[in-house]
Amino acid sequence: MMDVSAELSRTLGKATLVEPGRLPAYATDKADFRGSTPAAAVRPRNAGDVAKALEFCNRRKLRVVARGAGSSLTGAAVPGGKWVVIDTSSLDRILEIHVQDRYAVVEPGATIGALNKRLARYGYFYPPDPASAAFATIGGSIGTNAGGLKAGLYGTTKDWVLGLEVVLPNGTVINTGSRTLKRSIGYDLTALLAGSEGTLGIITKAILKIWPLPEAHRMFAAYFGGMKGAVDTVAELEKLGIALSAAEFIDKSGLALVRKHNGIRIPPGSNYILIVETVSNKEAADRVLDQAIMIAKSNGALSTKPARSEGERADLFDARRHMLISSKEKAERTHRRVVIADIVVPLSQLHLSLREMHHAVARSSLDVILYGHAGEGNVHADIAYLPGDAKETKAMNALQTRFGEIAIKHCGSVSGEHGIGLEKKDLLKKEFAARSTSESIELMKRIKKQFDPNGILNPGKIFD
Amino acid sequence: MMDVSAELSRTLGKATLVEPGRLPAYATDKADFRGSTPAAAVRPRNAGDVAKALEFCNRRKLRVVARGAGSSLTGAAVPGGKWVVIDTSSLDRILEIHVQDRYAVVEPGATIGALNKRLARYGYFYPPDPASAAFATIGGSIGTNAGGLKAGLYGTTKDWVLGLEVVLPNGTVINTGSRTLKRSIGYDLTALLAGSEGTLGIITKAILKIWPLPEAHRMFAAYFGGMKGAVDTVAELEKLGIALSAAEFIDKSGLALVRKHNGIRIPPGSNYILIVETVSNKEAADRVLDQAIMIAKSNGALSTKPARSEGERADLFDARRHMLISSKEKAERTHRRVVIADIVVPLSQLHLSLREMHHAVARSSLDVILYGHAGEGNVHADIAYLPGDAKETKAMNALQTRFGEIAIKHCGSVSGEHGIGLEKKDLLKKEFAARSTSESIELMKRIKKQFDPNGILNPGKIFD
Repeated sequence: MMDVSAELSRTLGKATLVEPGRLPAYATDKADFRGSTPAAAVRPRNAGDVAKALEFCNRRKLRVVARGAGSSLTGAAVPGGKWVVIDTSSLDRILEIHVQDRYAVVEPGATIGALNKRLARYGYFYPPDPASAAFATIGGSIGTNAGGLKAGLYGTTKDWVLGLEVVLPNGTVINTGSRTLKRSIGYDLTALLAGSEGTLGIITKAILKIWPLPEAHRMFAAYFGGMKGAVDTVAELEKLGIALSAAEFIDKSGLALVRKHNGIRIPPGSNYILIVETVSNKEAADRVLDQAIMIAKSNGALSTKPARSEGERADLFDARRHMLISSKEKAERTHRRVVIADIVVPLSQLHLSLREMHHAVARSSLDVILYGHAGEGNVHADIAYLPGDAKETKAMNALQTRFGEIAIKHCGSVSGEHGIGLEKKDLLKKEFAARSTSESIELMKRIKKQFDPNGILNPGKIFD
Repeated sequence: MMDVSAELSRTLGKATLVEPGRLPAYATDKADFRGSTPAAAVRPRNAGDVAKALEFCNRRKLRVVARGAGSSLTGAAVPGGKWVVIDTSSLDRILEIHVQDRYAVVEPGATIGALNKRLARYGYFYPPDPASAAFATIGGSIGTNAGGLKAGLYGTTKDWVLGLEVVLPNGTVINTGSRTLKRSIGYDLTALLAGSEGTLGIITKAILKIWPLPEAHRMFAAYFGGMKGAVDTVAELEKLGIALSAAEFIDKSGLALVRKHNGIRIPPGSNYILIVETVSNKEAADRVLDQAIMIAKSNGALSTKPARSEGERADLFDARRHMLISSKEKAERTHRRVVIADIVVPLSQLHLSLREMHHAVARSSLDVILYGHAGEGNVHADIAYLPGDAKETKAMNALQTRFGEIAIKHCGSVSGEHGIGLEKKDLLKKEFAARSTSESIELMKRIKKQFDPNGILNPGKIFD
């Protein structure tokens, strides 16, 4: 049997190989999807290293997965046995920032947080903002077409990627897109790569559109008995042209968790918190906030609370941002794991979908927290279950399936922003079948073959 | 020889066939690209008709081009001899408007203008706004990934298409994307179709994201001696977070044309007009306008003029919007035609690029007007030439090539928003070669083959 590590070491130099003792850490992701310890892992220093590694693997038909922070939640970043991991977290430089031209050039292993810290110096930011932005990498977030807290206003990752440097399995380096804010130069390979979960090529550089920080923002929390009031609040604000850079909701069981950490006081009878951030011109900030709070009240908010300081604002944001971590901490106390559903429906269907999701949860024996991005109708469900327990595992799978079916029923999708990975392949098939477009999966498979004829790049993810 | 018209008539019904006398009109587009009179043209009533027509053509390997308003500027919508035209202007219904869910479902033959007229009733709009919006169709604008006047603030067409119904050459109907504002469900076929110039499938329905109209807008014109001041004005405004829904420029020769129609008074020494529209909250509108004018002055504006009424605003916008029509009217007086270059560069390279373009124009004998979208560094050049005249034709081609080279040199692209069509195939190759990514064209060709194995859909456009 070939010693992959030793051969790769000869090809790339010893320094780029990950020490064998650290390989087991690659076998899982942030949602505890279990793959296998890979045969080897490489920390490339540049696109040349990635090209060499891929060429090596392609010749030997070794399977490869690119991995950034490993914070995927669907198993997309998890290798199988005898695979090679390309750990792009070593490619973490912010190479160029062009404020006047509104773009930055970044390596895939840079975190979104690091990029935004750098951009803030210039009064700019990169809008895609998954809750994991502090540690999620640019490469991974492009791979899943990450959405996040600001997607209602700013769109998702694919709207912010102007171009990519990508290594194909045969070692060819291609450059997609351009350094301009628009272009119409043939098929949009950049957009095709966004959301492709590492199955078409490995990104070694990204040209990202950046945006000036807004003049002013305000934040408030509103508590509702039912989600309909929250949905109507968001819809009415949007209709008035009030720009919402966040409209996050958390259900009662989620609130119970975050209250302990963030000094949040939940009025009696409330089943949902809605956390809204408005952006506006500075003159309008207070009027917009007042108007938004009034609209929340007129839609039945039981109580409302504006954030009076940056500290209070951070508390509210952190409550939402740390939801998954809080879920996992709670679950771990009973040795449970958490998997995360990620459905998306049109806003008008959000409260109906949530009602059906709550019904499904009530009929199961599991601990489930529902929360998400109200503006885009994107619901996450943290489902805690005991992996060794057949009944709980079955119940968890049944819930995942049910949630997907609810999304499909309400004109939605089975994945809003986490991607398909290993987890949602069956649901993806269901969604496409429901829309009479099963042919689309065949098209995707044929497209993959054009990039990756030997099928070495993250096979078995998205589709089989 | 097969009588295509008669056979199609038997397959689809006589009513969908275009009368023979009207076929010659399909041979050209708005930039006077000359193709051939097609063998037949079909006006489908629904996706089923398109599927039948495509299946018919695919079996017989007849070439097909989809065509909306025919307002393409690159020859993309022009058929060859013996081709079949699918005239989608008959599919012009606005099927659904979902304000709360922020999307509309539209047939490809609806014009952008008609859609916006309907949306305005609800206080919403569809942001992609090519100068031709009054007659350009949704299908055609998706085919070229149209940008337009508002692209600096709102992005281009691909950012606004959530999903598509598309007929493949074999008659299969696929549905891409979804009715949600985000999704991560495999490869983004929607984005792949946007900008594909009818070479992959024929769009029969589009799910488009819509947006609330801004609270307030203001407009002003500023005149500059050189473009550097205009570029710095735009950059400074954007850096301050002032939202610009238009930042249009026209050079001196263009101004000379529009002045006659729009009562525009050009101060001595000015070589460029910059037309800026700001959007803001209502409280901020006047401050933002004053601030913007002050910034224009501090960057050397020779004079500035705010639009004091809707009439004055329309005059300024129309001056820019009708530029191409004005150019053509002027050219026609000497029996000349106008072709339009469409390069795009990063904003910081705009004045340098324009300077080099003006040099090239000065060295040629042709009448050329330079204008475009400053915010995205997108320059159009209306080049008038006498088609029968070998010297002028050669000079025109040389200018097109030179402009493309200037774009490439300044990190830009050879097409900002009009697409490649027949016109810019060589320039596309040049651009990709300069970026060491000629492999990308091969990938595009292989992708096309997966959609269109017989190569019947608009062959010879984008690439050979």
